[in-house]
Order: sequence, then C-alpha cells, then structure tokens
Amino acid sequence: MVVRPTINVYPLENYTFGSKEPRREKDASVAERLHRMKDTYATEGMRTSVDGILLVQQHKHPHVLLLQIGNSFFKLPGGRLKPGEDEVAGLKRKLSSKLSPEGSALKQEWEIGECAEIWWRPHFETNMYPYVPPHISKPKECKKLFLVPLPEKCFFAVPKNLKLLAVPLFELYDNVQRYGPVISSIPQQLSRFNLNMVN
Amino acid sequence: MVVRPTINVYPLENYTFGSKEPRREKDASVAERLHRMKDTYATEGMRTSVDGILLVQQHKHPHVLLLQIGNSFFKLPGGRLKPGEDEVAGLKRKLSSKLSPEGSALKQEWEIGECAEIWWRPHFETNMYPYVPPHISKPKECKKLFLVPLPEKCFFAVPKNLKLLAVPLFELYDNVQRYGPVISSIPQQLSRFNLNMVN
Repeated sequence: MVVRPTINVYPLENYTFGSKEPRREKDASVAERLHRMKDTYATEGMRTSVDGILLVQQHKHPHVLLLQIGNSFFKLPGGRLKPGEDEVAGLKRKLSSKLSPEGSALKQEWEIGECAEIWWRPHFETNMYPYVPPHISKPKECKKLFLVPLPEKCFFAVPKNLKLLAVPLFELYDNVQRYGPVISSIPQQLSRFNLNMVN
Repeated sequence: MVVRPTINVYPLENYTFGSKEPRREKDASVAERLHRMKDTYATEGMRTSVDGILLVQQHKHPHVLLLQIGNSFFKLPGGRLKPGEDEVAGLKRKLSSKLSPEGSALKQEWEIGECAEIWWRPHFETNMYPYVPPHISKPKECKKLFLVPLPEKCFFAVPKNLKLLAVPLFELYDNVQRYGPVISSIPQQLSRFNLNMVN
C-alpha cells in the first residue's frame, strides 16, 4: 500500500477570531495591479508569490480559510516574496501580517508543509496555468501554494477591511466562476491526503 | 526552500509502440457499465480502481499517455482491483494487461510512484468528486491515480481496439468537456513536481 500523508483538521470552533487595523490595498483595480506588476518586473524580475492552504472542519467536512475583499474577490492568505527572500520565511511573514494579532504574546508559530501546487503567469494578464506554456521562456509570476497545518487551537486577527471565511470543499469544487482556477482546484490537490477530522 | 520531487520525462521517440490482440470491452454503454457496477457492489462492496499517469515529452512539454476507445472516450491505463488485491500489485497487473507485450521477454517492470489524487463516486452514476461528499457514508467507488515514472526506453504493446495517445498538458488543462474532470485536472496535480525534460 502507498501511504497517504495525514493532516489533522480541527473544528472551526477551536479557533478564536479577532480583528486588527485595516491593511492598505495597494491597487484599486485589476488593471492597476497588472500595471504595477509590470513596473516591478522591470526592476526585480519574475515575481514569486506564496499562499497558504489552511484547513478547519465543520460537520466533518474540510473547509479552506479564504480572505474576502469587498463582495466578490477571494484570496488565500499569502503574498509576494521580497527579492531573494526564502519562500518558507516569506510565507510565514505573510501569514503573520494577514492573520496574526499585533504584538508578540499571541503570535502564531506557523508550520509550513508540502507544496501543493504551482501556477505560472506567462504575461502581464490575469490568466495563470499549472505549467509553463510552450514558447514562454520568461514567465512573469510563479505562485506556489503550501499546506499550512494548523495547531489544535489558535488566535487569528484579521485586518478590518478583509473578511475571513471558512469555505467547504464542496463549494470550491468546480466553481471557477466564483473562486478562479487556482482556489477552485484545491479540492483535487487535497484528495491525496488523509484529512483526519479531529473532534 | 521546500524541495520539489523530481520526475524524469523522456522523449516520445524513446519508446516503441506495437499492438496486440484486442481486449474485450465489458460494457457496450455507460448505462450497462453502471448497471454492472451495481451488481458487483452487491457482492463485493465498494470498488477500488487504480490508474497510472505515464509521462513523455515532445518539444520539452510534458504529455500524458491516454487510451482512446472509439472516437470520443479517453481513459488512463489502469482498472479495477480484485477484492482484497494490493493497489500497487493491482496497478502493475493492469498496466501490463493494457500496455505490455504478451510473453516475458519484453515485459516491463513497472515502478509505481506517489498517489497523485483520489476521486470518489457517491452513487451508481457518472459523477465523481475529489472528496467524499457530505452525508455519503458508503461511496460506491474509490479511484486512485498514481504517478508511474517510465524508464528511459521501453516497448509498449497496445490492444488493437484501443489507441494510445500522448496528450500535451495544455490540451488537457481546462478541458473537462473532452477529457472529463479527472483527466483534465492532471496538469494541476503535476504542477508541484519538478518535471525534468531529459533529451
């Protein structure tokens, strides 16, 4: 038998959610974001971003933690690495800035698990692909998704301009329209794991 | 840095393709297949099937080996385990029956790699999901996809009623209509691997 890696998944009620000062959104629109990406590329080269897949359970079904901006835009907690920054260190930094309370007392020690998937942006456009498309020698962004096993209990603090949601796998699956191709494929990526629903 | 597992992928031209006697298709239609599944479930319980993801490259882009039945139906090489059969042994048996020449001289020693994804069939219907849907306590089938790293060269013999195709990732991606939800999600599953295109 081939052994499946196990991830313990704890009930949503185990976690405490607070809020903290809003984080300034850098761009007011997708067009602005792609424009800034182009500017940064000229000085820093390909962007690498790292996102975390954090799981909780409700009614024995796994849910993924997503940040909602406004009414329709969803993203995983994470973000862009600084030039030369280590991806594990960078993801921990981003998770703390998005999800940890300010000050050190309640600060979460993040555990970074396996890389679950990698997406490539070939042009300064919204399309991303889970491979480097043929004839593309200089992709503009590489996005890596990592599993982030949560401790049994912890405290999250979410910037006031964002909402933190626990979205069930059955809602994400086959729902590119709402969540985009990256987030909607998370159920397939998790299927090879033994998700242990701890009570 | 998190290390990505590496898979060597060799050019299609490295492999030799022959044919062998046709294999009887057990069912003439999808309805017949689901009906037989129900009969077998009554005596043997949940079906477990195992499929192999075999990769070759053309023009430095990874391609997946698929078997085509008739003009429109595609499947991965693999099939159903016998009751109690070990999944690795069963997949080797199925790969040999679908892809190896008869007789022992040219027989392929299959290497079975990581489990890439798992799909569940909740009812005696065509729908499958990469998780057990809520309220389903007795799924009817569990399908596991394994990576099968190929040797640098080998000989395949394909039953005369099937066609073996090498389909590029960019053709599979986002193409549920043609390849179904399982096969069309293979590019996402492979993205976490370092696919080393060997010349």
